[in-house]
Parts: sequence; C-alpha cells; structure tokens
Amino acid sequence: MNKPLILVSNDDGITSKGIRTLVEVMKELGEVIVVAPDSPQSGMGHAITIGNTLRLEENNIFDDVVAYQCSGTPADCVKLAKHFVLKDRKPDLVVSGINHGSNTSISVLYSGTMSAAIEGAIEGMPSIGFSLCDFSADADFSHVKAYVKSIAKNVLEKGVPKGIALNVNFPPKRNENIKGVKVCRQARAKWQEQFDQRYDPNGRRYFWMAGNFVNHDKGEDNDEWAIANNYVSIVPCLFDLTAHHAISTLNDDWNLTV
Amino acid sequence: MNKPLILVSNDDGITSKGIRTLVEVMKELGEVIVVAPDSPQSGMGHAITIGNTLRLEENNIFDDVVAYQCSGTPADCVKLAKHFVLKDRKPDLVVSGINHGSNTSISVLYSGTMSAAIEGAIEGMPSIGFSLCDFSADADFSHVKAYVKSIAKNVLEKGVPKGIALNVNFPPKRNENIKGVKVCRQARAKWQEQFDQRYDPNGRRYFWMAGNFVNHDKGEDNDEWAIANNYVSIVPCLFDLTAHHAISTLNDDWNLTV
Repeated sequence: MNKPLILVSNDDGITSKGIRTLVEVMKELGEVIVVAPDSPQSGMGHAITIGNTLRLEENNIFDDVVAYQCSGTPADCVKLAKHFVLKDRKPDLVVSGINHGSNTSISVLYSGTMSAAIEGAIEGMPSIGFSLCDFSADADFSHVKAYVKSIAKNVLEKGVPKGIALNVNFPPKRNENIKGVKVCRQARAKWQEQFDQRYDPNGRRYFWMAGNFVNHDKGEDNDEWAIANNYVSIVPCLFDLTAHHAISTLNDDWNLTV
Repeated sequence: MNKPLILVSNDDGITSKGIRTLVEVMKELGEVIVVAPDSPQSGMGHAITIGNTLRLEENNIFDDVVAYQCSGTPADCVKLAKHFVLKDRKPDLVVSGINHGSNTSISVLYSGTMSAAIEGAIEGMPSIGFSLCDFSADADFSHVKAYVKSIAKNVLEKGVPKGIALNVNFPPKRNENIKGVKVCRQARAKWQEQFDQRYDPNGRRYFWMAGNFVNHDKGEDNDEWAIANNYVSIVPCLFDLTAHHAISTLNDDWNLTV
C-alpha cells in the first residue's frame, strides 16, 4: 500500500518550531510535503493574494522532506500546493500548524492556521488545524505529539464528515497532564480590543491593536471550557456559513418588495 | 426620536464608487460615519493587523459625513470604529460595500466586504455586506439603490437574528430588471485556481493567481441560482463555524485515547 500523502502548512512561517514538530510527527504517518509561508502570517484570516504576485521557492530545511516557502498567505500556500506543486496528486491529509498560540472560539475566523485547513476542506481534502495555547516562539510541544499523531491517524483511517475542517487546540505544557480529548462547539467568546495610540518621530499618530479575550460562554461543551480544564479541544468547522435557521425568520418577518 | 447611527465600511477603499453609493443611500436613513480602508483590500478575508501599526486619518471626501481612512483591513476598520472612533456610541447598523464584484457562495470567506459585516455582527451590531456582481471600477449601481435602502430599513426596524450577518448580492445592471429578493443558502461552488507562472527581469519565477468560479450546486435555493436568475440574494451568515451535526459522528467513530 502506498504511504498517504500529507500536505503541511502553517501561519507562523516555515522556520517556526511548531511546523518542525508537525513535520516530525507526520513523517511517521506518510509522505510529507511542506508548502508554508516564508514569513509570519498570523491574523491573516482567510486572506488570499489577488492584487499582487506570489513567490514560491523550494528549500531543504527539513530532512528528507520536499519543502517550499511561499510569499503568500496560508490559504495561498494550500492553493499553490494543490493546483501547482502537486498537480495530479491529491493529498490524503492536510495539516496546518502547530500554531504558536490559541485558536479557540472566535479566533478561528482570524486564524491563518485554520484558513489553511479550511482551504484544504474546500478542496475536498481531510484537513486539520493544530494550535498550542502558548504564544512563545520556543513553546514546548513535547506533550502534544502523541495527540497530534492519534488525531491525524483517525482522520486518515476514518475521514472527516464532508464539508468540515477540524480545529484542534492543545493546553500549554505548563499545565498538569492533559486529561483527554473533547469534541466541542466553538465557545461564545470574543476579543475586546483596545487601541494603543502613539505618535511617530514625525508627530503623526499611529495605533497598535491590543486587547483581551473575553469568554461569555457559561457552557461546558465548548473549546474554551475544554482548554481551561486541560483537555484537548476538537471543533468540527464548516465553510458553509449559511444560518439555515434564520432563512424562514427573514422570509416571514421582512417586507422585501421594492 | 434620534436618527439611527450607521457605520459604513468596505474593502475596495474609501474612494471607490461603491462606498459613495452606499453613503448616499444611508444618509437617507440616519447619521452616517465612515471608517474604510485607504487602499483596496479585496480578498483580505477576515485578516486583522496584529504585527504592524495602523494609521487612521480623518478626511472630508463625503459631504456632511464624518469619514476616516484606515491603513488596515476591513475588520480593522470596524474594530477601530467601535473601540476608538465611536467609543461610547454603538451603531444601530453596520453596512459594508457596495463591493465591486460578486461575494456569493464560497467567496464569503475571502471577502473583505463580508469580514467588515461579520466583525460588526461579532460586536453585536446588525450588519450587512452588499456586493454588486460587476467588478468594473465604474460599475453602474443605480438599479440597486432602492434595494439597499429597503434591506437596510428592514434591518433597522426588525433587526437580524442574533449571531448573524447578511450577505447581499445584486445582479449587474446589464441584466434585465431585477425580479425580486430571495433569502438563500450559500451555494456549493468554489474557485478552480490556475497559477500563471512568469519570470521577472532578473529571471526569478513568480505567479499570478487566476482561475474560474465553478458552480457544483444543482439546487434553486442558493445565492448562485438567485443571481443567475436575476434576483437579489440574501444569505444569513454565521460566525459560529461549529458543525454541530458532526460532533456526535466524531464522538461515535473515533478512538481518541492516547
């Protein structure tokens, strides 16, 4: 039997520790190819590069693994991998990460890590985004390797329901031992921004976006609860955003004649 | 009674014809404030600016309307409007667009127009993204003004269901008269990319992303069908991406012990 083909990408850039860890684990499961950004792309959401050109360069920073660095976003990387680098070969699995930092709850929308996974799912490939709730560049990933492998194996063996990408978050190493895995819903939480207003040496105003993550969710079946209680969270994510339940409400309540 | 406060943004930039049209219509409904990108941001998805600084400058390109141009993405604009420009005032309505070009189907994920609307919804404000299926810079918006006003009025009067932003697309002017409005689901369609490989004057390779939009959806209850049949499409969109139906599948089928 042929080894499964596994496409690896991320949003922290091809030199980050998280993607090195992910490549290491995926090499135990199949043939790995890496197409990842040449620079950090955190917070890029599902951005794609349409008004500018893209660069794509092969490099050899991973042992025994074909790897390309791309000037674009994580979604660009998956598109280039699928439609240019791999041409007729379709990956059996797309994995993105391991992100340095949480992508729980609403962060899924801003996450470059998850946009690579969602792009894979749009292309009909089983796809997973992995994130560690630790933003530091030298974060310790050692405690999550066995979970990454187990989740990827489940996907390779059993697939994922159609039209879905998995958003997997891991508690940081500093916590006690991981208690297990919870399949969850996205928590109702959001960022409460504060803009730090400063002045440049020429006296012109500029801002840094800052803020706090605020959890409004009192449930125990969501990803914020899982992480806070030292479980791995898995949220199955849609790319069909339709709020089906709202269609009849709008049809009933609204007067849309002009 | 106070006039409703309406926040206007877009992704084509503050000087585009689409946002001028939208401001014009919104002035008939309330007090308008504009916070929009200072340059085109198409395809930015839900990107936010976290590794760089943001600029925000007041300008007076709209008659009788306070307007700011921002160096960031559409989502940045809404965040800056909500948490810095408007401070204690909460808009009664957030509108984004009118985009020059379609944002039907899967394009909702790549759309900067819709990211502004979705950001508004995350902040608990009734929000609508408007797009015209005509990419040209001098697109004719005259046939959609009455619909923009009617839809915005419905939202101001009746609100939208919680956790939802509206994705509104209009047929181009060149078509026959608009037949009416359809509340739809997102069509199952996607972009089939082709990468146009070129070489720069120094002999280094680069790419342009190109491709075709392919509709795989045979239904008649979706936004692609509506536009193709000369209806205005309204898709209510979620920002909770959870695939609730998949949670039990994963819990039943998978072995997630490590």
